[in-house]
Order: sequence, then structure tokens, then C-alpha cells
Amino acid sequence: MKINPTKPSGNTIEEVSVDCVMIGFHGDELKILLLQWNETDWSLPRGKIYRSEQIAEAASRVLKETTGIQDVFLQQFHAFGPANRYQPYRADKKKRLKNNKAKNDFHESIISIGFYALVDFEKVKPNLTGSFQWCKITAIPNLLFDHDDVIELALIALRKDLRYLPIAKLLPQKFTLREMQKLYETILNRTFDRRNFHKLLMAYDFLIKLPEKKIGTANKSPHLYQIDLEKYETALQDGISY
Amino acid sequence: MKINPTKPSGNTIEEVSVDCVMIGFHGDELKILLLQWNETDWSLPRGKIYRSEQIAEAASRVLKETTGIQDVFLQQFHAFGPANRYQPYRADKKKRLKNNKAKNDFHESIISIGFYALVDFEKVKPNLTGSFQWCKITAIPNLLFDHDDVIELALIALRKDLRYLPIAKLLPQKFTLREMQKLYETILNRTFDRRNFHKLLMAYDFLIKLPEKKIGTANKSPHLYQIDLEKYETALQDGISY
Repeated sequence: MKINPTKPSGNTIEEVSVDCVMIGFHGDELKILLLQWNETDWSLPRGKIYRSEQIAEAASRVLKETTGIQDVFLQQFHAFGPANRYQPYRADKKKRLKNNKAKNDFHESIISIGFYALVDFEKVKPNLTGSFQWCKITAIPNLLFDHDDVIELALIALRKDLRYLPIAKLLPQKFTLREMQKLYETILNRTFDRRNFHKLLMAYDFLIKLPEKKIGTANKSPHLYQIDLEKYETALQDGISY
Repeated sequence: MKINPTKPSGNTIEEVSVDCVMIGFHGDELKILLLQWNETDWSLPRGKIYRSEQIAEAASRVLKETTGIQDVFLQQFHAFGPANRYQPYRADKKKRLKNNKAKNDFHESIISIGFYALVDFEKVKPNLTGSFQWCKITAIPNLLFDHDDVIELALIALRKDLRYLPIAKLLPQKFTLREMQKLYETILNRTFDRRNFHKLLMAYDFLIKLPEKKIGTANKSPHLYQIDLEKYETALQDGISY
């Protein structure tokens, strides 16, 4: 379910925020969408929940209001608690902050509810301000609040959910098995034996082998495949083993 | 991580509660632990979070304070939002309530964070009051708040987490493959082909076939097995396919 929200009326919930972890995949890279507050301070997109909306609606609205991004399915994965946020090193970050809004936010949001989405970072671009950047997962700066923890748990949740997620939709419409393997390897941060992985995938009936081959690759031209979307959805109900 | 909490000091978070879904398994039955408020009103164990504790600590403390149950690993699975709680049929429930504390609770807790645990209901018994009961999953009454939804999502979360959970620890120390299959079937609410299921399990190295057989069963005596705990933990890291 993708939610395209409008601004609700009424009061927000004071003690709770939503944090959005946009996980971007393209080729063999994973990136996270970060908001730059000033020269040194970065965070995830975050915001409040209105009393008249669902938490998932709030997450979609916050993402749209802060980044301009919409039509993305955000998956709730974890609620982060009060004790974490007041450790000494968090207090340090707060002292450093020049921005009063961010300082207040340290007080107000005692609990935050994390959402993640997996998208193609070449296609999903923030369009409201210049202060958002897709940042390589290996080069994420020290973040405000407990957002380092939030990203860590988002990646764990993504890896656990992977068998139920239509990740193959992130591939080009026609793709090689090597590209599909790379997708799993990048997200899971591990390697697979090529033959075992292909055998596993071919045990499902959602891959359609095309007569065409991919040309212009270094070695011999590999076959192209596409997804039978209906069969893919069925396979995802039970979860795809890999 | 099992948490044995002590009462924290300071203020609670006003707008948020924790709900505990205790899922009980024994033989081929699933049950849920429910609190009876009066002749007609039932709910899950629930309570507030102190600002000085982690959310998981709050869940363990609430479970202990309300039911006396401790030493149970509670898994956070979902945060439930404001809009759900104020639908007309919830208001109906509220009007029906004779208990003022419960009435207030409808207002105060705008968001609740759900935790579940899977336990043996023959071993884990509430010992503080007589108002808690293990209730068969097929015979759960209409519950207060949004607790029907909370249980539904807890069961979905349990089924998704199953490949990573040490559920075999719910079996007797020595068990038959049939008993292990029944455990999976009861939790997943589906059946498996016996031979395929056994083949799948035997692909792992955590099952130790014992020289003894189970006696006193209707048909021929089946072999007994036990778990190699160390190998089991390793298998759970990657997730057990079934």
C-alpha cells in the first residue's frame, strides 16, 4: 500500500516522531538518504505524527514534506526508546547543534518509530531542497539523535524481510541472473556460490528466460530474464528461500 | 536477552503504552494470555513506559507487574497508531466499560508498542491474580482497545520470525520428528508433507538421532531426537528454511 498523504488537521503527538530510512540500491551500491543541517550535522528525514492519522500515513507525509518524495512503500520496522536518546554522547551532539529546532527535537521526541523503504537511488531523488544527499553506506557520517542505530536496525530488518519483498522490481525490466545475484549480495552484504544461487532461483517459476542475450559484457553474452509478476507475488507470500 | 526489571523512578511517557502478547504453545494448541476486566471485557497485559527505561525493559516490567511472569524474551514487533483507536466501534467498547481506569486508558495511550513471546503455556503461568487466563486462539473474545489487531499482527510477526527463533526449545528434551512437524504446523496454521518436511529438517546438522525410540504411541515406535544447541544457534543465524 502506497499512501499519498495530505496535511491533517489538529494536534500532533508530542512525545513521538517517525524516522524514515530511505535505502537506495543501484548497480552494486547501497546508499542512505541524509539531511544535512549544517557543516557537521546530519540526520534522517523525521517528523511528528498527527493524532488524526495512522503512523504509516505520518511516515509518508513526513517523507513528502521534507524531501518531496512520494509513491514509495514505507515499511515500519522498530520503535526506538527513551533511554537510548539521553546517553552522554547524544548530549554532546545536542550541545554542538547550532539549530534551535534540532535542539528542541532532542527534548520532545522521546520515542521514534522507524520506517524503511528500498528504492532505486537513480530514480528517487529528493526535490524540495539541496540539503538532502544519497550517501554511500560505507561513508555515513556520525548522525544526530540515535540515527546511527536506526539505520543499523533498518538494514537488519530489510535483510530479514527480504524473502517477502518484491526486490526484483529494482532490476531493469530485462536482467541477467548475475544482476539478480548481485542485488541479493549487495543487500545481504555476502556472496553466494553462483551455481547454487541460480539453481535455487530456478526452482521458482517466476523467472522467464528470454530468447535474447545481453550484449556488450566482458565475457560470453549471458541470457536475459524477466519476472512473471503474478507468479512472483505468489512466491513472495510464502517467502523466497536463498 | 531476557530482562528482569526493577521499577524505575521518574515520569512515564503519557502518550505511549506497551502491549504484551504472550503466545502459548503446548501439544497442538496455541493460546493467548488475556486479562479479564469484568464479565465482558478482556484485554492483553499493558502498561506505561518510564522515561528512564528502554522500551524492552518497560515491556518486561509491565509483564512482571501485571502477571508475575518473568524470564521471558519479549520481541518487539509493531507500533500501533492513533487513528485505529478512535474508530466508532472502539468508542462503543469504551462506553461499555465499567472500570474508570480502563476508560482513562482509552484517552491516554495514543500509541502502543506491541511485544510478543512464544512460551509453553503449561510452564508459564500468571501468578499475581486470578484474572488472567490462557485462552484458545480459536475462542478469543472481542477485546478492548485495538487488541484484536495487536494479536493478529503478533501472529503474523511470529510466523515471519519463525526461521530465526529457537522454537525447538519448546519441545520436550527428546522428541519425535512428528512432534517437531506439529510445532511448525500449529504455529504456521498449515500442514506439511511429512517426507518433504523431514528431508528439509535433516538437511541441517542440529538434529541428533538417538538410539532410543518413543514407546506407547499408536503406531510403530518412532525414533527420538534431540537438539545440538550450538549447531542449532548457528543454523538460526542464517534462518531455517521449511
